[in-house]
Amino acid sequence: MNIQIGRNKEVRRAYGIDEIALVPGRRTLDPQLADTRWHIGGIEREIPIIASAMDGVVDVKMAVLLSQLGALGVLNLEGIQTRYEDHNPILDQIASVGKDEFVTLMQKLYAEPVKPELIQKRIAEIKAQGGIAAVSLTPAGAAQYGRQVAEAGADLVFVQATVVSTAHLSPESIAPLDLSKFCQEMPIPVVLGNCVTYEVALNLMKAGAAAVLVGIGPGAACTSRGVLGIGVPQATAVADCAAARDDYYQETGRYVSIVADGGLVTGGDICKCIACGADGVMIGSPFARAKEAPGRGFHWGMATPSPVLPRGTRIRVGTTGTLEQILRGPAQLDDGTHNFLGALQTSMGTLGAKDLKEMQQVEVVIAPSLLTEGKVYQKAQQLGMGK
Amino acid sequence: MNIQIGRNKEVRRAYGIDEIALVPGRRTLDPQLADTRWHIGGIEREIPIIASAMDGVVDVKMAVLLSQLGALGVLNLEGIQTRYEDHNPILDQIASVGKDEFVTLMQKLYAEPVKPELIQKRIAEIKAQGGIAAVSLTPAGAAQYGRQVAEAGADLVFVQATVVSTAHLSPESIAPLDLSKFCQEMPIPVVLGNCVTYEVALNLMKAGAAAVLVGIGPGAACTSRGVLGIGVPQATAVADCAAARDDYYQETGRYVSIVADGGLVTGGDICKCIACGADGVMIGSPFARAKEAPGRGFHWGMATPSPVLPRGTRIRVGTTGTLEQILRGPAQLDDGTHNFLGALQTSMGTLGAKDLKEMQQVEVVIAPSLLTEGKVYQKAQQLGMGK
Amino acid sequence: MNIQIGRNKEVRRAYGIDEIALVPGRRTLDPQLADTRWHIGGIEREIPIIASAMDGVVDVKMAVLLSQLGALGVLNLEGIQTRYEDHNPILDQIASVGKDEFVTLMQKLYAEPVKPELIQKRIAEIKAQGGIAAVSLTPAGAAQYGRQVAEAGADLVFVQATVVSTAHLSPESIAPLDLSKFCQEMPIPVVLGNCVTYEVALNLMKAGAAAVLVGIGPGAACTSRGVLGIGVPQATAVADCAAARDDYYQETGRYVSIVADGGLVTGGDICKCIACGADGVMIGSPFARAKEAPGRGFHWGMATPSPVLPRGTRIRVGTTGTLEQILRGPAQLDDGTHNFLGALQTSMGTLGAKDLKEMQQVEVVIAPSLLTEGKVYQKAQQLGMGK
Amino acid sequence: MNIQIGRNKEVRRAYGIDEIALVPGRRTLDPQLADTRWHIGGIEREIPIIASAMDGVVDVKMAVLLSQLGALGVLNLEGIQTRYEDHNPILDQIASVGKDEFVTLMQKLYAEPVKPELIQKRIAEIKAQGGIAAVSLTPAGAAQYGRQVAEAGADLVFVQATVVSTAHLSPESIAPLDLSKFCQEMPIPVVLGNCVTYEVALNLMKAGAAAVLVGIGPGAACTSRGVLGIGVPQATAVADCAAARDDYYQETGRYVSIVADGGLVTGGDICKCIACGADGVMIGSPFARAKEAPGRGFHWGMATPSPVLPRGTRIRVGTTGTLEQILRGPAQLDDGTHNFLGALQTSMGTLGAKDLKEMQQVEVVIAPSLLTEGKVYQKAQQLGMGK
Repeated sequence: MNIQIGRNKEVRRAYGIDEIALVPGRRTLDPQLADTRWHIGGIEREIPIIASAMDGVVDVKMAVLLSQLGALGVLNLEGIQTRYEDHNPILDQIASVGKDEFVTLMQKLYAEPVKPELIQKRIAEIKAQGGIAAVSLTPAGAAQYGRQVAEAGADLVFVQATVVSTAHLSPESIAPLDLSKFCQEMPIPVVLGNCVTYEVALNLMKAGAAAVLVGIGPGAACTSRGVLGIGVPQATAVADCAAARDDYYQETGRYVSIVADGGLVTGGDICKCIACGADGVMIGSPFARAKEAPGRGFHWGMATPSPVLPRGTRIRVGTTGTLEQILRGPAQLDDGTHNFLGALQTSMGTLGAKDLKEMQQVEVVIAPSLLTEGKVYQKAQQLGMGK
Repeated sequence: MNIQIGRNKEVRRAYGIDEIALVPGRRTLDPQLADTRWHIGGIEREIPIIASAMDGVVDVKMAVLLSQLGALGVLNLEGIQTRYEDHNPILDQIASVGKDEFVTLMQKLYAEPVKPELIQKRIAEIKAQGGIAAVSLTPAGAAQYGRQVAEAGADLVFVQATVVSTAHLSPESIAPLDLSKFCQEMPIPVVLGNCVTYEVALNLMKAGAAAVLVGIGPGAACTSRGVLGIGVPQATAVADCAAARDDYYQETGRYVSIVADGGLVTGGDICKCIACGADGVMIGSPFARAKEAPGRGFHWGMATPSPVLPRGTRIRVGTTGTLEQILRGPAQLDDGTHNFLGALQTSMGTLGAKDLKEMQQVEVVIAPSLLTEGKVYQKAQQLGMGK
Repeated sequence: MNIQIGRNKEVRRAYGIDEIALVPGRRTLDPQLADTRWHIGGIEREIPIIASAMDGVVDVKMAVLLSQLGALGVLNLEGIQTRYEDHNPILDQIASVGKDEFVTLMQKLYAEPVKPELIQKRIAEIKAQGGIAAVSLTPAGAAQYGRQVAEAGADLVFVQATVVSTAHLSPESIAPLDLSKFCQEMPIPVVLGNCVTYEVALNLMKAGAAAVLVGIGPGAACTSRGVLGIGVPQATAVADCAAARDDYYQETGRYVSIVADGGLVTGGDICKCIACGADGVMIGSPFARAKEAPGRGFHWGMATPSPVLPRGTRIRVGTTGTLEQILRGPAQLDDGTHNFLGALQTSMGTLGAKDLKEMQQVEVVIAPSLLTEGKVYQKAQQLGMGK
Repeated sequence: MNIQIGRNKEVRRAYGIDEIALVPGRRTLDPQLADTRWHIGGIEREIPIIASAMDGVVDVKMAVLLSQLGALGVLNLEGIQTRYEDHNPILDQIASVGKDEFVTLMQKLYAEPVKPELIQKRIAEIKAQGGIAAVSLTPAGAAQYGRQVAEAGADLVFVQATVVSTAHLSPESIAPLDLSKFCQEMPIPVVLGNCVTYEVALNLMKAGAAAVLVGIGPGAACTSRGVLGIGVPQATAVADCAAARDDYYQETGRYVSIVADGGLVTGGDICKCIACGADGVMIGSPFARAKEAPGRGFHWGMATPSPVLPRGTRIRVGTTGTLEQILRGPAQLDDGTHNFLGALQTSMGTLGAKDLKEMQQVEVVIAPSLLTEGKVYQKAQQLGMGK
C-alpha cells in the first residue's frame, strides 16, 4: 500500500508469474531425488497438478487417466457432460462453429438444463474405472446437487466460482449457500475457490475448506479482467494466500493446500507458482492439447455460456501429444509444454529442493520477460514475418 | 514529485487504466443488488455512462435511444449535425473516403459554417422524442450560441475543449469565455472539461461546473499526445480530480460529479475508472460500434477537422450489435464490449460494492497488462500470424 | 545512483521521451500568443528546430528553404555534397540499391575523398541564395577544413561526432583537435556535440561552445546502442545538460543553448524535449519526408559509411508533404508529423507557456506509452493484420 | 531483497542486458588505443570472446580459426563431433529436417554413444593445426573422460552444465563429480559453470576454477526459463559474480576470470556485459552465422537432445559473412553483428576505457529498450507489415 496513483488513492504493486524467475542456490540434486508428492483433501498424489473442471479438458475418460498417471482431474458437473447424455456431437459442434457464432452457440447449448441423473452417472463411471472422482459445482449447484454428489460416491467436491466469499449478500428471495455449513454437512472434503487475498483465503479455511483455489483473471480462456476490470497477478495472489495457509496452520494445526489456478501454460509457470508458495496447481489449456482431451484441439472458458455476460473465449490450442507425454514425458516439444513432472523434478533438482516444502522456499527474483526491440525481430523471424 | 528524471527536474509517475486491476474484498453480493444510479447536473440516470459528443457516435436518434436506455448521449453542436441539414450523405462520404484523403475531406466538410437554426432544430428534435437534450459546445461556441441553446430547451450543456482552464489568455482582439460568468448566466447546468489535475478541477467547480470531465490524451481516436506531447494517464487524473471533488464537497456541501472521458473501451475500463473515483464515464468508440450509430462502423476524433493542426484519427471499429446489447446486454461478445451495465453490476457484485460510492472505495492494485514474450505467441496465433 | 543492479554496481534510472508526457497547468493561452523564438550562436530564429547534417536531409536547396521558413538546416561538409560535384546520380543510387547491398554501396561511395573546393562552393551557394550557412564537420574534418569554412563565409559551424569530449587521447602520431583552441580561433560561432552528461556539457561550454548538442543513441537511423551498447535516454540527457547550461549561465552570464538531437519524430517529441530543458531540437527523419529533401523518401545514418564499423541504417520514410507543411502547416496528417510550429504553439498554449523559458518549466509526468495487450489488437487492426 | 511480491515473500529486482546502456564519461580515446587483451586459464588472448561449445558453432576447423583470429572456441566433447566419425551427413540432416521433427531427430542422433577415440582424435586435430584445444564436458562426462582429455593434450577444459554447484546430491548408486578434487587432479586449467550468484561463483573459485561461466536461461536457443522457470537476468548475474571474483582476489591474490555466457547477440551486448564486470564473454548464435560454422545457418541449444526433457530450440540464423568479418571486420552489416573487436574498441574509445579493467568501471544506466507504440509502427514498417 505504498504507491500513490493519485491523491488519496494508495495502492500496491502486484506481480505476475511472467515477471519472476527462480534462482539456483548453493546446492543441486539429481532430479530423481526430487519428491513431488502432495495431499489434497486427504488424498495423496504423486504430481501436484490438477486438470481444470472445463468442458474441453476433463471428461470421464480424462479423469480416470489423470488418476492413473498420478495427477487429478476435476469433472465439471454443470457443463456439457451433465446436460447431454452423449457429449460427442455437442463437442463436435463446439469445435466446428465459426469464431463469430461461438458465443451464441455456447449460450444455446447451456440453455439445456443439467440432468441430476447424469451427475450420478458420470461419478459412477469414473469410480467404475478406478479413477478418483473429483467433481465441481458452482455455489448454486452445490446447494442443489451437493447431497446427490456425495451419495453417488464422489471423493472430492470443488465449489468454485470466479470469486467466492464467506459473506455473500443475496436478494431476500434467494438463500445463498452457507459455505461453512456446506463443508460441515458434506461427508467428503470440499475445495473452495477462487480467491486472491490473505483475508478471504483465511475465511475459506475457517469455513472448512479442504483446499483453496487461488487465481482470478489470469487464465488464457478467461476474460474477467477485460470485462470486469478484476484480477490480481498470480505471483502476489499465491504468496498472499500461502501466507494465510501458514498462519492458519500455525494456529490450528490443520494444513490446507493452496492450489494456483489460471494462466499457467508451461512447466516453468508451474515451478514458479510453487516457489511462490502454492502446494499444487490447476491447469486447463495445457491438458486441452492432449490427444485424449474432449476439446478436439480447442479450449474455452467456463464463463462463456453466461446468457447475459459471457466472459470467456475459445482458443485453438491444437493437439500436441498424449496426456502421458504432457504429464510425464518423454517430451517431444522443447517449449515447456510436455513432461510437466520431469520439468518440475529437474527444476527442483537444479534449485536444490528435495520436496515441495523446500521448493516453496527457493529464491525468486523480479525478472520481467518483457518484449524488447531485439526480441521483436527474433520473434518476427520465428513467426515467419521476417524482413 | 519524487522521481528525478535529470538534475533539477523532479517528476511524478502517473498510472493508466491498463496498469491497474481491481481486487475482490471479503464480501460479495448478487449483481442485481448493485445500485448503479448517479446524478449529473441534477438529472438522475440508471447507468453512469455518457456517449461522447462526436459525429460518429451521437445524432438525434442516438441521443433519444440512450436516454430511453437509462444512459445519456451528448450531441456535438459544432459538428456535422449543425453544419448540414441532411447529415446522411456527409457521413456516407466520411465512411467511404480512403485513409489518405480522410483528413483533407474532414477539413473541407468543416469549412461549412455551423447554422444556428440547426442548433435549435436538433435540440427540438431530441425533446420532441422525449430524450434528454444534452449538448456540447467549445468555449468559443458557448460564447456565441449559449443563449440560443438554453432557449431551445436543452437540459444540459457541455462546454468542452481538449483542455479548459479558468485562466485563459487571449489576444486583445478576442474576449475569452469567462467560464464562471457563463455558468452563472446559463439557466441550465453546465458541464466543464477536460482537465486532469486537482487544481484545475477545483477551479472548474468553483466556477460553477455541474460536473467536470477528466481526461486529456487517452482516447483511441485522439492523437494529442503524439502531436502535442500532452496527456496524463487516466487512473491518476481521475483519482486526483476525485480528490478535488471530495475536498470541494467537504467545504461547500455541493457534490460535483467527475466524469472520466477518453480511452475507455471495455466494461473493465469503466469499472476501473469508477474504482479510481469517477462518478461516471464518457465513452465514444464503444458506442460507435452500435448498429444505430451514425458513424457507419467508423469512429473519428473531434480534433480532426482542424484546418491547421488536425490531431484525431479515423478508426474502423466495425458494427457489433445494437445499442441495447452494448449498453444492457445480453452480450454476444465475450471481450467486454457488450452489456456494460451487466459488467458494471457483476463487477460491483464480485467486489462487494452496493453502490457507486462503495465502488469508488474498492481496492486497486498496480498490475500492468504488459506484453510478455509468451503473450506475443498467443496473440500472434489468435491473429493468424502463427508459425 | 540509487539502484543496485548487482553487488557493487550502483546505477541510475534514465528516462526516454516515450516515457514522459506534459501536464496542463492552471492557465491556458491562445496559441498565437506563444512566442517560439530562440537564439543559436547569436542568430535569432522563429522556430527552434534545426535540420540534421545528414545526406538525405539537407542539401543547399533545403538549407536555403529552412532559413526562409524561420528554421535552420545544417549541411554536412563531409558527406555526399562535398565528395561529388553532382550529387543527384549518387542519391539515386542510394535510393535504389537493395537493402542487402546498402552498407557496401555507402562504404564505396564514401571512399571518394572530400573535395575542399566543393566545401567552399556549397557554402557560397547557400549564401548566394540568402540562406544561413550552417555547416558541420567531424573533429578531424574541423582540424583540416576549419579555416576554409570560415573563409568561405559560413555563419555557424557544427563540430559533431557520436561523442565528443574535451579530453581525447590519440596515438602519438595524430594530434587531436583541441576544441577549446578551435573555438577561440574560429571567427564564427562553433556548436559542439554530442554529449549526454552534465559534466561533459559543462566542459564543452567552458571550451567555448556556442551551443551544445545533446543525444547519443536515440536516433531512428542510428544503431550505436546496438553496436556499442552506448546511449542515454533523451529526457534524462536533456535535463542534465540543461542543468549544466543553467549553472554555467549563473556563473558566467553566458547562455549556451542546448539542442536535443536524435530520435525525435513528432511535434509531441519536440515539445517534450523543450519541457525537459532544451532550447531547440535537431531532427532528421521528419525532414527526410519532405518533397524537397534530397533523400528521395529514404533516410540514413551518418555513421553508415564507416569502412570498418558501420552503425547506421537506411529507413524508407516516404514523402508526405512539402517542407512548409511539415514545418509550418497546414497539416494534412493527423499523427504529429506535419506543422511542427503549430504543434509547438498549440502545446505551449494548452500548457500556458508564453515563451520557451516557460515551456522549459511545465510539469512533466512519467507516463510510459508502453504496449499493452489491448493496444496490440488495435495496432494489429490498423496495420491490417487483424483477425 | 527489498520488494515484497506477497506476504512473507521478499524478492529482489534483477536486470537484463536489454535494460541497461553505457554512459560516456569525461574522456574519450582513439579506438586503436583500447587494449582488449585478457587471460583465461593462463592463456592470453587478444579478444575476450569465446565461441560456445555447441554443435552448430564449433568444430575442429572453427576452433583453429578462432585461435588464429585472437579469440577462442570450445569444442563440445559430448556432441555430434564425438558421436560420429563424419559429422557432415549428420549436420546436413539437422539443417534439413522440418521444425516439427527436429526434437525427435536430435533425440535419435544423440542416442548414438560418445566414442572415447573420437574425443582424442578431435583434440589431436586441433593441436595439429596449431589451435588452442579448449574442450567441454558435462560433469558426468568429466568424471568419465577427464583423464583422456588431459592425456590427449587439451589446453583447457570446460566442465559445464545448465547449473553447477559444489554441493550436488546424487542417488547412492551414482557418485557425483567432486569439482574440487577434479580441478586439483587435472593437469590443465578447468573452467566451471554455469552459475548466477555470488555464493556459487565464490564456491567454484574455491574449488579451483580457472574461470567461471555466468548465465542461466538467457540464451536465444535455450528454453530453460520456460521449461523450468529458472533464470537470472544477465546484468545482475554478471555484476554479482564479478563481485565474488573481486572479493576472492582480495583474499587470495588469485584472479579468476568471469565469462558471461548466454543471450548475447550484438557488439553492444558484449560491451555491456564487460561494463557489468565480466572479463570475457561466451557467444553462440553470432558465430553460428559465420560461413565457416558447422551449423549451415542454423543454431540449436545443447539441452535439446535430452531424451526426456528437451529444453533448447533450433533457430534459423542465416549466414551473414566470414568468421573474420564477424570477429574483426570490416563489417558489412550495420546492426552490431559484424566486427565485434572493432565494436568493443570503438565502445571503449567512446567511453574512455583504456583496457578491460577500466571498461568494467564505466557508468551504466537503466535504460529499457522496451517497445513503445511508436516503435511498433517503425518495426512493422521495417518488417514490411506496414499499412
